[in-house]
Amino acid sequence: MDRRSALGAPQVGLLPSGPLDAITDVAGVALGQVTLSEGAVQTGATVLLPAPGDLFLHKLPAGLAVINGFGKSAGLMQVQELGQLESPIALVSTLAVGTASTALIRDALAQQPELARSLPTLNPLVFECNDGWLNDARALALQEAHVLQALQAARTAGPGAAVAQGAVGAGRGMSCHGLKGGIGTASRRLHWQGQPFTLGALVLANQGRPEALTVAGQRIGPALQRRLAAFDAAQAAEASGPERGSIIIVLATDAPLDARQLQRVARRSAAGLARTGSDYGHGSGDVALAFSTAYRLPQRAEDAMPCVTLLHESALDVLFQAAAEATEQAILHALWAAEPVQGRDGQQRQALTALAPELRTQPPAAWATLL
Amino acid sequence: MDRRSALGAPQVGLLPSGPLDAITDVAGVALGQVTLSEGAVQTGATVLLPAPGDLFLHKLPAGLAVINGFGKSAGLMQVQELGQLESPIALVSTLAVGTASTALIRDALAQQPELARSLPTLNPLVFECNDGWLNDARALALQEAHVLQALQAARTAGPGAAVAQGAVGAGRGMSCHGLKGGIGTASRRLHWQGQPFTLGALVLANQGRPEALTVAGQRIGPALQRRLAAFDAAQAAEASGPERGSIIIVLATDAPLDARQLQRVARRSAAGLARTGSDYGHGSGDVALAFSTAYRLPQRAEDAMPCVTLLHESALDVLFQAAAEATEQAILHALWAAEPVQGRDGQQRQALTALAPELRTQPPAAWATLL
Amino acid sequence: MDRRSALGAPQVGLLPSGPLDAITDVAGVALGQVTLSEGAVQTGATVLLPAPGDLFLHKLPAGLAVINGFGKSAGLMQVQELGQLESPIALVSTLAVGTASTALIRDALAQQPELARSLPTLNPLVFECNDGWLNDARALALQEAHVLQALQAARTAGPGAAVAQGAVGAGRGMSCHGLKGGIGTASRRLHWQGQPFTLGALVLANQGRPEALTVAGQRIGPALQRRLAAFDAAQAAEASGPERGSIIIVLATDAPLDARQLQRVARRSAAGLARTGSDYGHGSGDVALAFSTAYRLPQRAEDAMPCVTLLHESALDVLFQAAAEATEQAILHALWAAEPVQGRDGQQRQALTALAPELRTQPPAAWATLL
Amino acid sequence: MDRRSALGAPQVGLLPSGPLDAITDVAGVALGQVTLSEGAVQTGATVLLPAPGDLFLHKLPAGLAVINGFGKSAGLMQVQELGQLESPIALVSTLAVGTASTALIRDALAQQPELARSLPTLNPLVFECNDGWLNDARALALQEAHVLQALQAARTAGPGAAVAQGAVGAGRGMSCHGLKGGIGTASRRLHWQGQPFTLGALVLANQGRPEALTVAGQRIGPALQRRLAAFDAAQAAEASGPERGSIIIVLATDAPLDARQLQRVARRSAAGLARTGSDYGHGSGDVALAFSTAYRLPQRAEDAMPCVTLLHESALDVLFQAAAEATEQAILHALWAAEPVQGRDGQQRQALTALAPELRTQPPAAWATLL
Repeated sequence: MDRRSALGAPQVGLLPSGPLDAITDVAGVALGQVTLSEGAVQTGATVLLPAPGDLFLHKLPAGLAVINGFGKSAGLMQVQELGQLESPIALVSTLAVGTASTALIRDALAQQPELARSLPTLNPLVFECNDGWLNDARALALQEAHVLQALQAARTAGPGAAVAQGAVGAGRGMSCHGLKGGIGTASRRLHWQGQPFTLGALVLANQGRPEALTVAGQRIGPALQRRLAAFDAAQAAEASGPERGSIIIVLATDAPLDARQLQRVARRSAAGLARTGSDYGHGSGDVALAFSTAYRLPQRAEDAMPCVTLLHESALDVLFQAAAEATEQAILHALWAAEPVQGRDGQQRQALTALAPELRTQPPAAWATLL
Repeated sequence: MDRRSALGAPQVGLLPSGPLDAITDVAGVALGQVTLSEGAVQTGATVLLPAPGDLFLHKLPAGLAVINGFGKSAGLMQVQELGQLESPIALVSTLAVGTASTALIRDALAQQPELARSLPTLNPLVFECNDGWLNDARALALQEAHVLQALQAARTAGPGAAVAQGAVGAGRGMSCHGLKGGIGTASRRLHWQGQPFTLGALVLANQGRPEALTVAGQRIGPALQRRLAAFDAAQAAEASGPERGSIIIVLATDAPLDARQLQRVARRSAAGLARTGSDYGHGSGDVALAFSTAYRLPQRAEDAMPCVTLLHESALDVLFQAAAEATEQAILHALWAAEPVQGRDGQQRQALTALAPELRTQPPAAWATLL
Repeated sequence: MDRRSALGAPQVGLLPSGPLDAITDVAGVALGQVTLSEGAVQTGATVLLPAPGDLFLHKLPAGLAVINGFGKSAGLMQVQELGQLESPIALVSTLAVGTASTALIRDALAQQPELARSLPTLNPLVFECNDGWLNDARALALQEAHVLQALQAARTAGPGAAVAQGAVGAGRGMSCHGLKGGIGTASRRLHWQGQPFTLGALVLANQGRPEALTVAGQRIGPALQRRLAAFDAAQAAEASGPERGSIIIVLATDAPLDARQLQRVARRSAAGLARTGSDYGHGSGDVALAFSTAYRLPQRAEDAMPCVTLLHESALDVLFQAAAEATEQAILHALWAAEPVQGRDGQQRQALTALAPELRTQPPAAWATLL
Repeated sequence: MDRRSALGAPQVGLLPSGPLDAITDVAGVALGQVTLSEGAVQTGATVLLPAPGDLFLHKLPAGLAVINGFGKSAGLMQVQELGQLESPIALVSTLAVGTASTALIRDALAQQPELARSLPTLNPLVFECNDGWLNDARALALQEAHVLQALQAARTAGPGAAVAQGAVGAGRGMSCHGLKGGIGTASRRLHWQGQPFTLGALVLANQGRPEALTVAGQRIGPALQRRLAAFDAAQAAEASGPERGSIIIVLATDAPLDARQLQRVARRSAAGLARTGSDYGHGSGDVALAFSTAYRLPQRAEDAMPCVTLLHESALDVLFQAAAEATEQAILHALWAAEPVQGRDGQQRQALTALAPELRTQPPAAWATLL
């Protein structure tokens, strides 16, 4: 049986997808992106708004999993300590983390006059991957204004919108298994004691060596590597070297979980990632964040704390499954949606489905003989 | 291409196996096992000797990865703090951890008269899984003498011996994906800058729900679950419930790494585990230990510290790959080697290759249509 | 102003003590102890019952802080993963951890016929320090029956009873800063938004070198070291060597906190410990556990999860203060309550207040000139 | 006996100070600072150069301890994963972290043309505290140029120079226990097996509530709080509220330690911090970094790895003592060196020694009666 997602990628796992098969299937989640594509500048920003309303005054529970910590993402320590998410989440190129942090701060200052006065400062959450093969990362092209523009795009789009995938936003310059990677998303629906819940994943996929790529259990990497070498020797050679990529995974759910439980859920994205061929390479910064939209935590001690009935720890099994499946699916979507991109110094990344069109037309069981 | 291991399981990954395809391919590693199999008592002990000589006076560097911490293994905290392995490693049934700890202590007291006098006490390292489906765990059948017997068996066997796999030693009563699990092992050979190294894995495989089982990328679980239900409804029903299993993974290598690097290597066993279908279930205690035999660390401050040239951090990529591949392979070996076992209250576990003989005779690509 | 606790030790910090100045000021907490004192056997067991009722079916939220992980305590990994306490807490001598674990398991098997059948296995929580200077630790004198006897004593005593301190229970053979240490306890009362709460500490104090001892801010260690050398040169010499002690700290509170918050509270015991002169020595296993009695977490998924209104994170400041103060106070109580003990090979530990009686009669500010 | 440091503060602990009593006593460490002081802008940057030469190509081993993670420092994850320090260390105001990160990146791009080309990107290490009481943090006054200027000042000063302390550099706007805090430093000399080593501490002290302040074991906070209330009611009132401060602690040593050992050393700064009265308040981001200058780790895999003889783990005891003592001493130096500062909206912080001149002239034992 050859089940396919709406994007045409193999449908992995056993749980059903949500209507958009996107992180925006989780009620309240919105996304905005800005793409810079001009010559050697192939980069951008993707900003996720985890929930409507004032996130600084009414935070969300959140947990982190550092799968491999070779990375420069900012804001992690406070999430680990407090288990709270209080800012929009920005995804950018590695060297743009500082700029994106300042942009999120500038927006928060504009929204909240008591920030850094009677209220504490903001913990901006900024994740990154290194898009330096396609993008002239040294040019520091991304400006605060671009990040604010992506943030505004998320506010304008609002919750529930479809998500552009592939070589867009922060994904513009990203590579994945020596091919064009970038933004991917997916969702899974699940039940616990009769109640329906949704878990969505958003990835910035920039990880993996060509030979390791595995899709729907089929290790197609070695065959693709041969095609890649024929297509573009430079691209193939660089991609065979040590991994300098990364993957950022953001998981959202409407299930009522606390920070400790969400940390456990976040850790399961590593299972989905492994199934695409990753060994969490030394040079790859692989980080996952999971948050719940089920309740809010007040900034001010004088505001009432919510009375929360968490899911029983046993419920996590199906959430773990959803996290693993949605992550694997989102990575496939990043690869399936990506278009080829040419960037700095004439360097390029081919798209997976351009390099191997039979992945679209033939069932996975047949790929071994075709490639 | 249908590559098979010596045990007849699919050969996974790209790196070659060592001569024994076992953890004992790493020079100096020895293993002993004691199996208790009589009626409702289906349990045992597996003891690994990481290196020859006095491990308490001359320790090994070691690192731990807690993939999912629902478990009762003992001795972990000190390994995490000091990065040192100073005792044999015992694998047993959950409720026997205390007994095995005391047995290892008793052996150390006999070997070292200054222990708990002028020298510190021993940190016995004991890992466990719950074999309660087949074994009458409540009977606490395993005695200190059994553990000491397994330890003696390891000393007698010495380094470099083949390893009995499947329903033996601590693996006697273990289940894996609703089938008979137990002890499995594998090894991988690798090179870094022209130098050859070996990494070996030993698993006590007791994890996984039937529907999730994935072999060589083929998700055969749902098909097997149907066969299992026809074969034994009780077994299938129990196995479909929440996971109460666990997997213990021990990795040995002769590559010169320090505790931090070994901790990173240990974490990669999670990738191999994921590829067999595990989402690191809530109720599953999934723990990995990695140690290096390349140098020793003296107990006594007056003994000279070694001058160590570690491998460059970039070398870890191939060690990561070896760790993931050897773990996945060792799990397959546990399944392939296992014989059916009947235990307490007439409960049983079928062997994978008895339930699906075509896994031995047909290539993985054909399984989808056969099962 | 020379404020003193009921035991005659300096009253440290600013928060008031509870009526018993003991961990049993926290409603529901009970304690039992068994002391073995005959010749070279100077050891025992202290068992804490965190709450009434069936702790295995109705668990408590709990958090751990490993201040220094050179230790062999058992059961920590699962508390860190699940944030749940499901067994009595036993404190024993290092080499008795296995025996005590098995004893707690045996008790649980007797109480719960479904344990290791339809229900999971128990995670016995056993903490330890090394009492090898006074006690013949190599004799493994403590038997399962002793631990069960201490457990029974706790059940008989019930909540709210006074706690015997000093050279009793697991504290019988323990040393502290080269003097007699052992069991100590204290409590602090606090308010948050008008609501009263209590936090209690229980310590097994076996840490510290003589020269470092600091009481109520006065570093009296060097002066005491001189007196100790005059009193017993062997004792003083051994105590000046590398630290092989440890301290176990158990914190109980009735404030509604979750596991993450309790982990933060547990970490603050390190501040109280530091004020008694500890630098968390390399050879010292310093571990703190904090639990809340404010609500229960069901073992069975079919039992209803509680609706919990946690304290706002800002409330933690006063709980942190209480944790630091109660820990420091409990250590002082262990020293103040201890009687001199003579153990194996004629070795002894003098009591602090016997060595320096002016600590009882003179205010701290005067100690510098007296000692 | 009233021992004093060169700055006139009580000399705490037992180990001797180095010649400068500063982190620059560790060979190779250099420091530069830029101070912005004009009206409502009271802030700055302090940049530490851990070692001469190219730190990106030849890194230092380093370890981190997150004492309390309510903070926004950047670059921590990679240090935790790799145990390597590869950039200068910048200390700034909270909302300037992004700006400082980008400044360090810009400098590295200028130094190393292969960065983000054939070499990976830089992990800039930026620590922060919130100086919002004195400084108009919302104005984002600190520019990249200021950070680069501080970096240049460090390069110009070179190793071995004295360090300006108190209300300078990043310390300009910082508060400590309701008084003027800021930059402080100290060092300790120690021996292991006859070999001399040095450990130095640099703190950015912005932590603590007035009532908790403890100097040389004397809890002078409550008395100072009364004087503070008389001096400036607004200052005293704000400082009595919840802690929104932080402390950054950087430890340098020439002892040959690896990342795991340095992490253990870093953790001991918490003991020194506790002795000044801190309970590691909820709102306080308390982070410590320790690095060793004893050997370098090459960026490039083709460069030879060093053969390193680490100190035996037992040597850590005296390094722990040095870390605790140097941290406590550096905090006292920050308070002793600080001058009063007036900042935004007329808000001010008084200097400790201005508020209580008898701290300079009277021995600590006498303070209780004087204040």
